[in-house]
This record gives sequence, C-alpha cells and structure tokens, in this order.
Amino acid sequence: MNHYDVGIVGGGIIGQSIAYQLAKEGLAVVVFESNRIGKGATSAAAGMLGANSELENNDAFFSFAKESQRQYHKLCEELLQYSQINIQLVDNGMYKLALTDSEAESLQHTTKHHQAIEWHPKDIVLNNEPNVTNEIKGALYIPEDGHVSPIHVCAAFAKSASHFGATILENTPVQRIQKVANDEYRLSTPHANFTCEHVVVANGVWSNYFFNELGVQSGLKPVKGECFSFQSSEIHLERTLFFDHCYIVPKGDGRFVVGASMVENDWSTEPTLGGIQSLFEKVIPILPNIKSAKLLETWAGLRPQTDDGKPYIGKHPTEENLYFATGHYRNGILLAPKTGTMIRDFILKRTQQEEYVNAFSLDRKLVKMMR
Amino acid sequence: MNHYDVGIVGGGIIGQSIAYQLAKEGLAVVVFESNRIGKGATSAAAGMLGANSELENNDAFFSFAKESQRQYHKLCEELLQYSQINIQLVDNGMYKLALTDSEAESLQHTTKHHQAIEWHPKDIVLNNEPNVTNEIKGALYIPEDGHVSPIHVCAAFAKSASHFGATILENTPVQRIQKVANDEYRLSTPHANFTCEHVVVANGVWSNYFFNELGVQSGLKPVKGECFSFQSSEIHLERTLFFDHCYIVPKGDGRFVVGASMVENDWSTEPTLGGIQSLFEKVIPILPNIKSAKLLETWAGLRPQTDDGKPYIGKHPTEENLYFATGHYRNGILLAPKTGTMIRDFILKRTQQEEYVNAFSLDRKLVKMMR
Amino acid sequence: MNHYDVGIVGGGIIGQSIAYQLAKEGLAVVVFESNRIGKGATSAAAGMLGANSELENNDAFFSFAKESQRQYHKLCEELLQYSQINIQLVDNGMYKLALTDSEAESLQHTTKHHQAIEWHPKDIVLNNEPNVTNEIKGALYIPEDGHVSPIHVCAAFAKSASHFGATILENTPVQRIQKVANDEYRLSTPHANFTCEHVVVANGVWSNYFFNELGVQSGLKPVKGECFSFQSSEIHLERTLFFDHCYIVPKGDGRFVVGASMVENDWSTEPTLGGIQSLFEKVIPILPNIKSAKLLETWAGLRPQTDDGKPYIGKHPTEENLYFATGHYRNGILLAPKTGTMIRDFILKRTQQEEYVNAFSLDRKLVKMMR
Amino acid sequence: MNHYDVGIVGGGIIGQSIAYQLAKEGLAVVVFESNRIGKGATSAAAGMLGANSELENNDAFFSFAKESQRQYHKLCEELLQYSQINIQLVDNGMYKLALTDSEAESLQHTTKHHQAIEWHPKDIVLNNEPNVTNEIKGALYIPEDGHVSPIHVCAAFAKSASHFGATILENTPVQRIQKVANDEYRLSTPHANFTCEHVVVANGVWSNYFFNELGVQSGLKPVKGECFSFQSSEIHLERTLFFDHCYIVPKGDGRFVVGASMVENDWSTEPTLGGIQSLFEKVIPILPNIKSAKLLETWAGLRPQTDDGKPYIGKHPTEENLYFATGHYRNGILLAPKTGTMIRDFILKRTQQEEYVNAFSLDRKLVKMMR
Ligand SMILES: Cc1cc2nc3c(=O)[nH]c(=O)nc-3n(C[C@H](O)[C@H](O)[C@H](O)COP(=O)(O)OP(=O)(O)OC[C@H]3O[C@@H](n4cnc5c(N)ncnc54)[C@H](O)[C@@H]3O)c2cc1C
Ligand SMILES: Cc1cc2nc3c(=O)[nH]c(=O)nc-3n(C[C@H](O)[C@H](O)[C@H](O)COP(=O)(O)OP(=O)(O)OC[C@H]3O[C@@H](n4cnc5c(N)ncnc54)[C@H](O)[C@@H]3O)c2cc1C
Ligand SMILES: Cc1cc2nc3c(=O)[nH]c(=O)nc-3n(C[C@H](O)[C@H](O)[C@H](O)COP(=O)(O)OP(=O)(O)OC[C@H]3O[C@@H](n4cnc5c(N)ncnc54)[C@H](O)[C@@H]3O)c2cc1C
Ligand SMILES: Cc1cc2nc3c(=O)[nH]c(=O)nc-3n(C[C@H](O)[C@H](O)[C@H](O)COP(=O)(O)OP(=O)(O)OC[C@H]3O[C@@H](n4cnc5c(N)ncnc54)[C@H](O)[C@@H]3O)c2cc1C
Repeated sequence: MNHYDVGIVGGGIIGQSIAYQLAKEGLAVVVFESNRIGKGATSAAAGMLGANSELENNDAFFSFAKESQRQYHKLCEELLQYSQINIQLVDNGMYKLALTDSEAESLQHTTKHHQAIEWHPKDIVLNNEPNVTNEIKGALYIPEDGHVSPIHVCAAFAKSASHFGATILENTPVQRIQKVANDEYRLSTPHANFTCEHVVVANGVWSNYFFNELGVQSGLKPVKGECFSFQSSEIHLERTLFFDHCYIVPKGDGRFVVGASMVENDWSTEPTLGGIQSLFEKVIPILPNIKSAKLLETWAGLRPQTDDGKPYIGKHPTEENLYFATGHYRNGILLAPKTGTMIRDFILKRTQQEEYVNAFSLDRKLVKMMR
Repeated sequence: MNHYDVGIVGGGIIGQSIAYQLAKEGLAVVVFESNRIGKGATSAAAGMLGANSELENNDAFFSFAKESQRQYHKLCEELLQYSQINIQLVDNGMYKLALTDSEAESLQHTTKHHQAIEWHPKDIVLNNEPNVTNEIKGALYIPEDGHVSPIHVCAAFAKSASHFGATILENTPVQRIQKVANDEYRLSTPHANFTCEHVVVANGVWSNYFFNELGVQSGLKPVKGECFSFQSSEIHLERTLFFDHCYIVPKGDGRFVVGASMVENDWSTEPTLGGIQSLFEKVIPILPNIKSAKLLETWAGLRPQTDDGKPYIGKHPTEENLYFATGHYRNGILLAPKTGTMIRDFILKRTQQEEYVNAFSLDRKLVKMMR
Repeated sequence: MNHYDVGIVGGGIIGQSIAYQLAKEGLAVVVFESNRIGKGATSAAAGMLGANSELENNDAFFSFAKESQRQYHKLCEELLQYSQINIQLVDNGMYKLALTDSEAESLQHTTKHHQAIEWHPKDIVLNNEPNVTNEIKGALYIPEDGHVSPIHVCAAFAKSASHFGATILENTPVQRIQKVANDEYRLSTPHANFTCEHVVVANGVWSNYFFNELGVQSGLKPVKGECFSFQSSEIHLERTLFFDHCYIVPKGDGRFVVGASMVENDWSTEPTLGGIQSLFEKVIPILPNIKSAKLLETWAGLRPQTDDGKPYIGKHPTEENLYFATGHYRNGILLAPKTGTMIRDFILKRTQQEEYVNAFSLDRKLVKMMR
Repeated sequence: MNHYDVGIVGGGIIGQSIAYQLAKEGLAVVVFESNRIGKGATSAAAGMLGANSELENNDAFFSFAKESQRQYHKLCEELLQYSQINIQLVDNGMYKLALTDSEAESLQHTTKHHQAIEWHPKDIVLNNEPNVTNEIKGALYIPEDGHVSPIHVCAAFAKSASHFGATILENTPVQRIQKVANDEYRLSTPHANFTCEHVVVANGVWSNYFFNELGVQSGLKPVKGECFSFQSSEIHLERTLFFDHCYIVPKGDGRFVVGASMVENDWSTEPTLGGIQSLFEKVIPILPNIKSAKLLETWAGLRPQTDDGKPYIGKHPTEENLYFATGHYRNGILLAPKTGTMIRDFILKRTQQEEYVNAFSLDRKLVKMMR
C-alpha cells in the first residue's frame, strides 16, 4: 500500500535529515529520490560548518546556523549508534585569511562582535600553518567552524531513518504533487502514485519546479560550484583555509578539498575546464607548493540559491500540510540538522521559535542579496 | 527563446536517433535528458543486433528489426563523418547454443524459415569456438547478428544531431507535458518552460508516467537486467554466444560482456549480489575456463517492457503532434535506427509502411506476451 | 645526497609502521615503494584486528598480536595528531559463528582459555544481529576484535613519518640490495642508487626475492585473497561476522566488506569470477537478504605466507644491520604496530622480549602449518 | 618448466610488439610485466602517429618512423583478426599550427622537403576547423599523421601474441638478469627464476637499471608527461591540432585528449596541479570555447628519453643474445611496429637495413639533443 504520513521529495542531506527526525518520532515516512541518495549538491559539498565564516550578520539566520552547528556534536554519536556510519566530524577550526591590508582591517573588525573569533597576526598564522604563503597579512581564527563528510552525514541520516522504519525510494522522481482530498496529497512517479498526509518539498535547486507548480511566488536559481581534491605528502594543514569565497579543507582521509567556483544559472553538474582553472589561479598564490601536489578528482554541484540568500523552511502560504525545506545555498550541510528538527516541529505542531519561522517563511519580504 | 519545432523527452539511444533524423532535415529540435545522455538502459545494453536471435515470429516486427539492423552499416559511416565517433560495429555473427537434444531440434527447425541461418553440429562449433563446453549439442549460426557499442551509438547520434543544430539539454527532467494551444505543447522543467510544436515521448521505461498523464491506456514495466564484463588472455571467442536469454559478447576492446538477468518490476539500477550470482551460474557451464577470468565490472539497467513485447512507435490516440517512441524492451539498440526514421516520417508527414504503423500503434490490440 | 640511516624496502603498512617509529626517534629514513604506498596487500585487507579470532594457540604469537591490537587505541590519536588522518577504528567486537553442533562445541570450548570471549547462544545472537540466518547454532562473542581501515592506517603512518622527516619514494622499486662496505648497503633502483646503514626488507610477499638473493633459506608464498563490498539499507550489522575463514565487516562508511578467498601460489592481483562466486556461495546462507544488496566493488590482494604461518621479524642470520619484517600472512594489519616498534628496537639496540625475538627469527625451526 | 627461447622484460607496447612478431614465427616467448600490460607510458600516450610532425630531420630515424607508421594500416586488420581488438586507427591527419609569423614562415619552409605536407593559410584552416582561434597565422597540413588508441594496440599485440602461444606474466617484475651459461640467461623474479636463450630489455624508462647493471654506458631519463581529456558537444575537430609540443587529439570515442607537459627527471606518475594548469594555459588560447568543455580525466606517464632523442634498438655491445628496445621517448606508439620487426630480425638473424642498425645501436656516438 502506497500511503504514508509524510512524503519527502528529495533525498539529499535536507530530505534525509527531515526523514530521520520524523521517523524517530514514529511517523510513517517515505523519501523520494530521483537518483541515488545524496547525489545532488550534497555529494559535491566540502562539508564546512561555516556558521561564523559564511554568515555576516548577527541575525536570526546566524543563531539558527550556530544551533545547527552545535547539534552536529550530538548527532555524530547518535547517527553512529543507529547507522554505524561515522560522519567524519573534524573540529580543528578555520583560518579566514587576509590577503590585503584592507581585508585585514575588516576581518579584525568582526572580532568585536563575535566572541568565538580571534585575530591572528601573520607570524602566528605562519607558525601554525607553515605551508601558507607569507604574502598574507594575518587571519581570523574561527575555532568553531569545523567540517564533516556530507555524503557520510546524508547516508547516516538515511540509514538511521530506515532503522526507524522510513522507506527510502531511490531512482524515483516525483513528477507531480496534487492535492486530492482535504488531507491527502498525491505524488506521482513513473512507478506508481503515492498518497501522503503531509508533503515536504526538499529537492534542492530542482524544487524550483514545485514552487511554480504549487503557486508559490518565489523560486530558486542554481549557482554551480566546481571543486577538486589533491594529495601531497609535503603539505600539512591543520585548519581549513578560507579566502575570497574559496577554501581548502584538510579532510580526515588525507585528501584536501578545494572549492568552489560560483557560476550562476548553469544547471550542468560537470566541472568545466575554465572553472577548475579559475580555482587553480586562486589557490596557487595562497599555497605555493600546491603546484607539485597530486591532482585527484574534480567535480561540481548546484547550490540552491534564493533571492535573499536565506533558505525557505516553512509552510506553503495557503495549502495545509505542504512544506518547503530548500534553498540552503552555500550552507546546506551546516543547516541540515536544524532544518530537520524545524520541519519535524511544524508537522508535529510543536512550538517553534518565532524568529526562525519568520526568517525562513515562504512569504517573507525578500531583500535582494548583494553579491 | 525557448520555442522549438520538436521537443524530445529522453536522451537515450531512441531519443538521440530521432533527434538526429529530424535535425538532419532542418527542424529545430531540443532533447531533454534528466541525467546525462545515454545513462539509462542504453549504457547498460550489450549492444547485440539480434534481429534473428531475439525475434521468433516472421512478422512485421521481424522485418522492422531486420531493416533497422541493415541501417547500421550505412549509419556507421555517416555518424563517423558527422561526429567522428566510431560506433564499434562488429559483424562476426552469433552462435545460439543448443544445450539439450530438444533445444537442438527446435533450433534446427528454425533454419527452415530463415535463409540467413545455418545449423552447425557440435564438432564444427567446437572447432570454431574451442572455449565452449563440449556438453553442447550444436548451435545455430546467425551470421547477420553482430553488435555495436550502445553508448558510442548514442553519443554519435547526439553529436551528429548537434552538428545539424539540435539542442541537447542534459540534467533537464521534463516534469510535465501540457497542450497549451492548438499546435503548441508546453514542457515544464525545473529550469524553465519550453514550447514545442511536436513532442516525442522517448524516455524509456520512465515514459510510463506520461502514458498515465497523457491519458493513454497502455503502459510500461521495467525488467531489470544485470550484466558483468570480464577479461582473459586465455579465452578467445569470435562470435557472440547466446543461450537461455543469456549471452557473452566479445567486444572490440578486449572485454567480454555477459548479460543479463531478468527481474520484473524492479526500478533500481544497481546490480545485486543475487543477480550477478545467477549469471555466474548460467555462464560457467558454457565457458568453463571463465572461472579464472578477471572480473572487471558489474552494472544494471531497466528494459522498458510493454504488454505484448513490441515497442510503441506512433501517435497519441487522440492528440495531434504528440508521439511516443518507447517500450523497446530487449532490443532498443537494434531498433533505434528504424525508430528514428519512422518518427521522422510521422512528423514530416511522409508515407509510412502501413504494417509498421499498425504493429507499433498505441491503440493496437495487445496480445499478452508469454514469457 | 642519497645516504640514509635506514632504508626500508616496501611501502605497505609494515614498511610505513617501521618508518614512523624510526623517524619519530630522529633517524634519517627512506622508504622505497615500487608502486604507490599501500597498494599491495594492505589496500586489499578488510582491516580486522582479529587477535582472538584468528590465532588459535596461547603462545608468543598470540601475546604479540594482543599487544599490537592494544597499541591501536593509542596510535589512533597519535596518528590523527601528526597526519590528521582518521584510521577509522571501530570497536564493536566480532561474532564467530557456529554453523554446526560440532563447531558450536569446539567454539564453546575456547571460552575456557580466553577470558575476553563469551559464548552467545543462538537466540541472543539473533536478537543482537537479526539479519543472521537462524540456521546458526550460536556464536563466540569476541568484544576485543575490532577493525580499522588499512589504507588509512598506512597513509597515516606515512604522513606521520614524513612529518618527522622521513623520505617516501613512490614508483621506486628496489632492484638489488648489496653490502658495499662494513656498515653500508647499496640499494639500486631504476632512478639512482642509495646507500643506507641499515636495511629493512618489508615488501610483503615480494620479499621472497630478497630471501633468495640475500641467502636466507626460508621464503614466502602468496595466498591470494579476493573480496567484495556491498551496501544495503536493509542490512544492519553491529559486529563483524566470522565463519569458515570468511567474514563480513560493517565499515564505518556504510559499506560492508566480505572476504576472502584463499588461493595458493597465485601471484595475480585481480579478482576472478570463480573466486568471487565462491564468496557468494559462502555468504548467502549466513546472511540470506544479502541477495538483494547492491554489489559495489571486487578486488584482490596477496597475503605473504610463511611455512609456519608466523611472520619473519628479525635480523638476517649472518649479516649485520639487515632486517626482515614480512610474512604477516592473514594478520599484517593487526600486527603492524608491534612490528614497527620491534624493528625500531632492533635498530636502536634496545632490549626486546626474548620470546618474540625467538618466535619470529629467520632461523627458527619451522613447523609446517597445517591448513 | 621455466625455459623459453626469448624472455622480454616489459609489457608495454614495445615489449608486446616484439612478443607478437616472435610468437608468430613460432618461438617460445615469455613477457615479464611488473604491473599490468600497458600500464606504463603506453597507457598515458595520446597515440599520435606523428612521423612528419614530430621528427625534424630527413634522416634514418625519419624513414624508420615512416615505415612504422605505414605498418599500422596492415597491422590494424591483422590484429583484429587474431585478437578481435580494434586499435582505433583514425586517419584524418593533423594541423601543425603557426601562432606567430615567424612560426608560419618556418613551417612553410618544411613543405619544401616533405611531399606529404601542405601549407594551409589561415582562412582555409578556420574553414576546416572553425573552433580554432582566429589568432593563428595558418597551419601545416599533414595528412599522414593519424592516431591510434595505444592501450588497444598494446592489448591487441598481447592477445595476438598469446594466440600464437606466447606467455604473458603480469605482476612479475624482473629483478635481475644474469648470464648463467653460454647461451642461457637467468631472469629472477619474486615468484621464480626463468631461463631464456635470448633476452630483450624493453621496460621503458625503467630499463635504465639494466643499462647500469649490464654494463652499458648509456642510459635513460624520464620526461614526465601530463595529460587530460575533455568532452564537449560544441567542439568539433576533425584533425589533430599540434602546437608548441602540445596537441589536441579528437579520439573516435568522442573524447579529446590534450597533452602533454614535459617534466624532466621526475619519476612520479601522477598528474600535478601545476602540470595540468600549464596545459590549460597553453590550450585555452588555441581553442577558446574549451573553457566550457567538461573536464573528464587527468593522468601522466614517463617518456623514456635518451641522450640524443633516438631509441636504443639493438644488441648489447659485447654480450650475445642480449637486446635492448627502449628509449622511444615521445614516439613509442609510432615506432612500436617497426621496433617489433627489427628485434625479430635480430633474433632470427635476418638481414637488416644497415642504416637503422647504426642509427639505433647502443654504442653509437651520441650527439646531445638540443631542447
Ligand atoms: C561545490 C559546493 C560546495 C559546498 N560546500 C558546502 C559546505 O562546505 N558547507 C555547507 O554547509 N554547504 C555547502 N554546500 C551547499 C550544500 O551542498 C547544499 O546547500 C545542500 O547540499 C543542499 O542539500 P539539499 O538536500 O537541499 O539538496 P541536494 O543535495 O541537491 O538534494 C536534492 C535531491 O533531490 C533530488 N531530486 C531532484 N528532483 C527530484 C524529484 N523531482 N523527485 C525526487 N527527487 C528529486 C536530487 O536528485 C537530489 O538528490 C556546497 C555546495 C556546493 C555545490
Ligand atoms: C542489461 C541490458 C542489456 C540489453 N542488451 C541489449 C542488446 O544487446 N541489444 C539491444 O538491442 N537492446 C538491448 N537492451 C535494451 C536496450 O538497452 C533498450 O531497449 C534501449 O536502451 C532503450 O532506449 P531508450 O532510449 O528508449 O531508453 P533509455 O536508454 O533508458 O533512455 C531513456 C532516457 O530518458 C531519460 N529520462 C527519464 N525520464 C525523463 C524525463 N522525465 N525527462 C527527461 N529525460 C528523462 C533517462 O535518463 C534516460 O537517459 C538491453 C537492455 C538492458 C537493460
Ligand atoms: C584479501 C585480504 C584480506 C586481509 N584481511 C586482513 C585483515 O582483516 N586483518 C589483518 O590484520 N590482515 C589482513 N590481511 C593481511 C594483510 O593485508 C597483510 O598481512 C599486510 O598488508 C602485509 O603488509 P605488508 O606491508 O607486509 O605488505 P604489502 O601491503 O603487500 O606491501 C608491500 C609493498 O612492497 C612493495 N614492493 C614490492 N616489491 C618491491 C620492491 N622491489 N621495491 C620496493 N617496493 C616493493 C609493494 O608494491 C607493496 O606496496 C588481508 C590480506 C588480504 C589479501
Ligand atoms: C603523456 C605522453 C604522451 C605520449 N604521446 C605519444 C604519442 O602521441 N605518440 C607516440 O608515438 N608516443 C607517445 N608517447 C610516448 C610513448 O608512450 C612511449 O614512447 C611508449 O609507450 C614506450 O613504450 P614502452 O613499452 O617502451 O614503455 P612502457 O609503456 O613504459 O612499458 C614499459 C613496461 O615495463 C614494465 N616494467 C618496468 N620495470 C620492469 C621490470 N623490472 N620487470 C618487468 N616489467 C617492468 C612497466 O610496468 C611498463 O608496463 C607519449 C608518452 C607520454 C608519457
């Protein structure tokens, strides 16, 4: 029988986080994934938990991100228990590098508002990370911004959800969502139709279709990101390096992940020669001996971008039991835990923090992001 | 501008064959592919052109298949010219093995109807293919049933189509097809909407959704097929071996492809342990020294099966300018060339062979296939 | 300049463990690896730390193995610190399954000698691991036999060694080892010759050549092992399952590793069809729903086997400063830590435990292993 | 029994070409390959048959290369027959581009000596290859310089050799070659020792070791070459483009291969970030829309370079029955056929062309190449 309490469209990290939280509460959950779980943006992500480094204002979005970041510490153990998958949480912090004096100044400025952030002058940075170019002017040290392995987090959520009874259907695109009764939605797929009491649209940038189809004004645009990984016996990095929307993440398996280009309105998911070249150009001045490092792999993914850069996590403006959890742009890995509990609380009608409900609602007033 | 003469849903070998024929005639063609071109059943196929070995009745379907098979010889050169891709046509024929006396008898029987087929007694077979088990009773020799590389054919069609101006959109699933005006269809995708004068539904087993959605009674079921490839310096095979829905194809790159299991109603596209094991069990008795061969890769794909085992190539029962080209089941590689020219002739309103139009029409009377 | 204190031939887990221990003591170390580090047996291993499950006698070999197993807990943190690589230590124990009554009896018997082992009757086993066949008779529960990721351990040793100044030369086969002066050996490679004061032969089964060449009576034979990995949302296993030289290891990344065949005197390193089939046949009765699991990868490696099944860790019988550390057969991952410290102690002339020196010496009296 | 007429050290394209020619003559041949066949420089090569484009003087080397190039046409059919492997011979010629006026002049000059070469002015080039930058000044058109797939050629030689009874031992490094009797050499490997009447040293750049070991003055140095492949529906190229030691080869499978960097004295076989970047920088100005092409793979290999840039194909200066066939530098694919027949003729004591014997002899007077 094809009836479920909740149908989740999209099996990326966001869909799986939601599935996990709801299945744990005993709901009958089904996740529809058109490809394989995590094969969208999730598998392309570097996995930084950049609450402090990525977000610039001390607003609701920032607190939400910090809460989500903190949840990872508990989740790490919880998911290991239910799924036996280790999400590869690494907690060595991050250096946000200043390459010019004016950058140095503006970065130093931010330490005033953030307790968890310190300014490290050039000599300390070079002492801690001797592979970094001595052209830098210093760096912001952000101890709380660690990283995880996104594909492991996603798989761990999925396996834990299925441990609690969730059904996860790979190779199953949702073609259409229709309201068929007061509290029933029909989700059509090439295999079969399914009915669900609640529906969560969580299929990353491809959610854009359902915004249109379900009469929501706003929408999403892809910002393609290209990455590569390398290996080197000569390069030791303890902290993630961050500079100019670009980063080098020392993963716990000996690889370094470098990302990511920003290509607007490109829906293709393969790295281009030009994209990878632009990364090379940015990264070589920062880490000069990278030139002799072994190039391992290149890949790309699509960040789901909204007009104001904040995700949509909330109810359909008019329809009951229809939710959206998408548009996580550059920070979906960071935001996945808290997105999962927030959607859970909507569906279970638990109280929510008002400021988050407003910040991420579908009918908020959008202030176009400046980029 | 998002308007085209013809929109083709599905970028497998069928969609690309159609795109090629129409673009060559100067039409403005767009192909929508949800993943990458050829990543559906096409890339899983062994590529046999088994007109004689696969089809059992001397009917319209058989003549269609033979015509399609013959087209490959000309296509091979044509596609090389436009795309520079070599489709790896190999024309050494096939042995359909008899493992029991009764099989031998029934195979020998078929030589009466087919001129192009000979019976080879056991000693000749073993002389020609010394690696085959001497438990066989003889084999049908089918010189015309060669093979191609499906993924190369598909890529060559696509590149040749784009040579003639076709637009091929990867990573672009069609979510919905709607008639919006007398001679205009709207195709909705997560990126954008497109309008097309003609639409061809050619997305393999996933076409099933559009049968429902567009009000066609019939439909498709997947029959999953699992395969593996191996390599061996000891095994020399000149001809394809065929036995009990199973085959061993000596490819022109030194690999041998073995296929394929038959799993009904399974929509997953990864090989299972049980599926691969069942192939091992079938193939070891036929080619005993395969046990020491190097196992290379395993994979799976979904054959789009119709109720009577014949494809749907034709018009929508009531709507104008809406075509289907799907359901090619076990023989889509073989049938791709002729499917392309047949759909072209529909759209260009050229005369068609009546018997083919009837045999593959969407509202033909279905006689359930016996399996 | 090509002179070093210690030259280590072979960059598998054994060579890297030794390099790490010596570099940490300040010696100038060079590791020669003909291919890439860890690409020999090390990368093929399942990574079980099977001190209790693999070894049958309560002898010196057993104590050595237990010490090595325990070292992993400290190493895990140490290597993370120096290399930032997480060796994926999982410590959930193992079930050694009894499939017949007589096996049950003999396994129960072993609990008498080993404190760290418990007998679990069938119902407890099935309660703890519900995916196991209910044909079993019970199982030995071995809480101390966990597992690591061999390739990560090897990479972590290598990176930590290079952190302490060791030179690691990939793509550099040692062709010949010659004594050129009283305390100098020349190691010839296609690139250049190197001189070293001490030499450690640690190139796995390929060490066999240097036994002959350097006049040692004993030698090594390969026992090829074939493996595969699978994935399944339905199968949950907490503990490693062990039965009949075969095992299923639930890795911390969601994959399960199944191994391994035992093929004597086969030097090839690719899995054969027959080898993988033999694993399928063994494993399906134990874990019936494995048939629908996704088959991921297959691979093979060569276990370096000695005549009595124990490794050679010690000095050349007559030449000074020439050491062997090889022949670790089925347990090189388990034994790597302690092998590293033992060779370190030889070279630094520290006191050793006599019983280990004797047990693993090159001129011990060999008692042929019964298999 | 481990005795053979001829032992060939190295299973790259050179070793396999020799093995094929000798096995076809009925000799008992064994090939020793330390890794898998073709995994050295052979698998890294682009496969150009650049007799006219690569060689600058109208000397013996040039005639040898032209003869070898011509042999490919016959070999193509022959190898298909014996091995069923298609070597992917493509014969659309090459454009050697002039980027400056002075290059244009010097290239035009070469047409005087070479009949088979034409000068194409800019407009003709752009007409034939519209994707090329219009910054070029014209190009030399070299119709005879086609290309093959090196790994398929190597596999086809190997399979054809084994068809004629040759033994090919993968995973079998030769550690040492010793003369043990008047007409007997012993080849030692980790598995076993072998005796052979004739020995051919053909292990690419790694032959360097045997030059030293066997008392030959000369030697080899690696020149590492890094490559990448890309795919693009927008780029159509019919001919290979060649410019400044760099090339873009349109392969018959839809990929384009771009090569290759030139890194002297680097023995590593993985592409570095700096190497790939240097290719990007060279190729983007030539083919501007390459920036949006999909980057597929990157790889590297070692060209075996001699002091004067010509291969060593001949006898050991003093020892009987000991041959070298190595040092093929940038052109080993091109030169493989003729190298095979030349070594065959040495061993079978057939007459040879004197000028070739002299040109490639081991004790020729070396004139250092200018680079
Ligand atoms: C290069 C790059 C680097 C990044 N780095 C970071 C980082 O370091 N830290 C961080 O926090 N974030 C990072 N991100 C952002 C992060 O990856 C995304 O915000 C996050 O993965 C979004 O998750 P998702 O589940 O919403 O989308 P996705 O992972 O894209 O998942 C959506 C899923 O829906 C499926 N789907 C699509 N259509 C349908 C349909 N019709 N029916 C069913 N299923 C469907 C898709 O196949 C896909 O699996 C990065 C992104 C990129 C591209
Ligand atoms: C194991 C196996 C072996 C086979 N061997 C042979 C053989 O030897 N000879 C032979 O003739 N045939 C063989 N076949 C059959 C043959 O592969 C198929 O009949 C043929 O590939 C069908 O082609 P297609 O283009 O219709 O489908 P597909 O190749 O499946 O292409 C359909 C495409 O549509 C895309 N798509 C799906 N939904 C959408 C959407 N909503 N919007 C846009 N795109 C969409 C998919 O991603 C896919 O790429 C074999 C099949 C299998 C599985
Ligand atoms: C299928 C399988 C499963 C296994 N499972 C386990 C397990 O679960 N637990 C466990 O403890 N053990 C296991 N083992 C055993 C374990 O893998 C080995 O004992 C261990 O890897 C041996 O390490 P090594 O460094 O001696 O050899 P290797 O890892 O083989 O390393 C030797 C290295 O020497 C290099 N080399 C060779 N010749 C030369 C030369 N002339 N010059 C320079 N370098 C050279 C090789 O390239 C290689 O990298 C398993 C083995 C196999 C095959
Ligand atoms: C990037 C690149 C591009 C190139 N492009 C072209 C081109 O377009 N056209 C062209 O003509 N040429 C090209 N070349 C040159 C060509 O690849 C080489 O000249 C040719 O492959 C040399 O063949 P080989 O058999 O001598 O060496 P290899 O292919 O290197 O084979 C030597 C073999 O010996 C094995 N071996 C090593 N040591 C031992 C041992 N002790 N015992 C046993 N086996 C051993 C190795 O594993 C290897 O497989 C290119 C080379 C590179 C690197």
